Amino acid sequence: AAALDLAVIGGDGIGPEVTAEALKVMRAATAAAGDAEIRATEYTLGAAHWLATGETLTDEALEQLRGHDAILFGAVGAAPNDTRIPSGLIERELLLKLRFSLDHGVNLRPSRLYPGVPSPLAHPGDIDFVVVREGTEGPYVGNGGAIRTGTAQEIATEVSINTAFGVERVVRHAFALAATRERRHVTLVHKHNVLVHAGHLWRRTVEAVATEHPDVTHDYMHVDAATIFMTTDPARFDVIVTDNLFGDILTDLAAAVTGGIGLAASGNVNISGTAPSMFEPVHGSAPDIAGQQKADPTAAILSGALLLEHAGRPEAARRINEAVYADIAARGGAGGGADSGAVRSTAEIGDAIARSV
Amino acid sequence: AAALDLAVIGGDGIGPEVTAEALKVMRAATAAAGDAEIRATEYTLGAAHWLATGETLTDEALEQLRGHDAILFGAVGAAPNDTRIPSGLIERELLLKLRFSLDHGVNLRPSRLYPGVPSPLAHPGDIDFVVVREGTEGPYVGNGGAIRTGTAQEIATEVSINTAFGVERVVRHAFALAATRERRHVTLVHKHNVLVHAGHLWRRTVEAVATEHPDVTHDYMHVDAATIFMTTDPARFDVIVTDNLFGDILTDLAAAVTGGIGLAASGNVNISGTAPSMFEPVHGSAPDIAGQQKADPTAAILSGALLLEHAGRPEAARRINEAVYADIAARGGAGGGADSGAVRSTAEIGDAIARSV
Ligand SMILES: CC(C)[C@H](C(=O)O)[C@@H](O)C(=O)O
Ligand SMILES: CC(C)[C@H](C(=O)O)[C@@H](O)C(=O)O
Repeated sequence: AAALDLAVIGGDGIGPEVTAEALKVMRAATAAAGDAEIRATEYTLGAAHWLATGETLTDEALEQLRGHDAILFGAVGAAPNDTRIPSGLIERELLLKLRFSLDHGVNLRPSRLYPGVPSPLAHPGDIDFVVVREGTEGPYVGNGGAIRTGTAQEIATEVSINTAFGVERVVRHAFALAATRERRHVTLVHKHNVLVHAGHLWRRTVEAVATEHPDVTHDYMHVDAATIFMTTDPARFDVIVTDNLFGDILTDLAAAVTGGIGLAASGNVNISGTAPSMFEPVHGSAPDIAGQQKADPTAAILSGALLLEHAGRPEAARRINEAVYADIAARGGAGGGADSGAVRSTAEIGDAIARSV
Repeated sequence: AAALDLAVIGGDGIGPEVTAEALKVMRAATAAAGDAEIRATEYTLGAAHWLATGETLTDEALEQLRGHDAILFGAVGAAPNDTRIPSGLIERELLLKLRFSLDHGVNLRPSRLYPGVPSPLAHPGDIDFVVVREGTEGPYVGNGGAIRTGTAQEIATEVSINTAFGVERVVRHAFALAATRERRHVTLVHKHNVLVHAGHLWRRTVEAVATEHPDVTHDYMHVDAATIFMTTDPARFDVIVTDNLFGDILTDLAAAVTGGIGLAASGNVNISGTAPSMFEPVHGSAPDIAGQQKADPTAAILSGALLLEHAGRPEAARRINEAVYADIAARGGAGGGADSGAVRSTAEIGDAIARSV
């Protein structure tokens, strides 16, 4: 069998620390599963790289990235108070540019409340759902502008673009995923009573795809109502399919109710296989704790498991998920913080999980 | 002093029941405060009216509504499974048309966790903030469309329109409101790292208005991060200012963490006084329990207090707020449900509050 050829973009802040642990665990699981080795090529990109070179993502780097089987991504972005970097520049010209250039139409964001992890909810219930977020359309397309900027007559617009092509592929993916799960249920989240045109495209697509999956049930929820259920009864959700912006909002909320973004993994998937998919923790670069071995690498490690599963290595992925599950249970809570006695370093958490895969 | 001349739009479902109680309580508080009487004119509008007449809001009705001092609004909308009514039609052609036609640029949505009301959060803390939501712009303008509808080449767009005029007035209102509060803090919620043009207009406006309020502090939060803090530390918020769509999403979430939308009040305010402002509970028409005296009228009653305050009757408003506060405390929880022994009817709750204003 062929080696798995990965690009690793550690990025800024805690990004390099957590991807290092993810890679360590992925290699251990690869060995345990008897899979062919992982080859990793590091790419230095992000806010620090921009400060040093003025470059976000060159055409050459993008072409090189295309040559890999998959990308493991840490986090990018400078400290919020670092005024040398135009706000949002790195996010747009690196992270979003990768998602758009590599056609990551399906953004998978599983949410699960692990036993022993404290939720901010008093009665969280048994939370285990996946948000399937569209990744290349909606208000994220960068289509907008402003006139008379800085005057009392300024007008600024943002255009959400939604295509049958983009909506259909993500909806199909959501139904196919739901068909493999126990509850086999898809919830479309949108705001079609206000965003009529985009909303109707989404609804019609869901109705059409649903006819191909008689074994999968489905319902609809406005995004505002979805935030209510996310706090009062998140266990009701199985698979949520939604647009790029609503998915962004709901997955942070989902991460919060399942114990914080220290555990939330994600996969930016190119479903047609025309370019590598990219796997990243939902959390940011946390510059305030960077380089101190304080970050929890669990979200990056779980993203590594998603990567291996996507790369056709389900056994290695399963080993990681189970090792993480056991590690979290032993912590008595996320991150091994206040309640659990000793606080472990980033590498210690990675080592412990790597040992038990 | 002159009578207060109100238009009352009960609407559909539980709307007429809850506005009846609000009016009852407002009249009792008016008498207790020694204010001039309230005159109320009922307007029959909503889904049932549309089914009977094919009309949502005629030019004549809109003109008549303009003649009143303020509008008390219940709820509109048919049952979700009522296929006779195009989805979202009543919301857009009645509710949103009123907000836009009457220039309700400032949508005030206070969130407070009353003592004794159960929150879904394990440690909610002392929640007391106001969301100041823009009401006439953003993705709510109805500017969008679709081509090649129903084909594999369909493209649907939604355009968010943001003007210096609209943003500045709502930001000014938020800072002025914050200046009257104890913590004097404004948080701008947006997503300027992605929605660059609209986001920069909002940020620049906040920075400019902030210079006029050296006593008010301010910060910025992305909407996705705001949902996290809304569940992990909602007590941190004082005044949130945000756009129409983010405000819609955040206020449902805020209502959830403060014990449900049965208590959430709102005011759609025309700050220039060119048309009447409109006050409404955040909840919907709940057709499943309509006409059964099961609805909690508290959100409508609190909306009535906002109306009276806006109409220059702070004493009557204060009496209502205190009576509601006492009533909720005596319930041992919102709605007087399972925990509190007897379940009261809609009218019984209204009567109890009216008696103690
Ligand atoms: C950093 C930002 C551009 C990004 C997004 O909005 O998608 C992030 O919030 C996420 O959810 O991955
Ligand atoms: C009914 C709907 C159009 C409305 C909105 O989106 O503003 C509602 O959700 C609200 O928050 O008042």
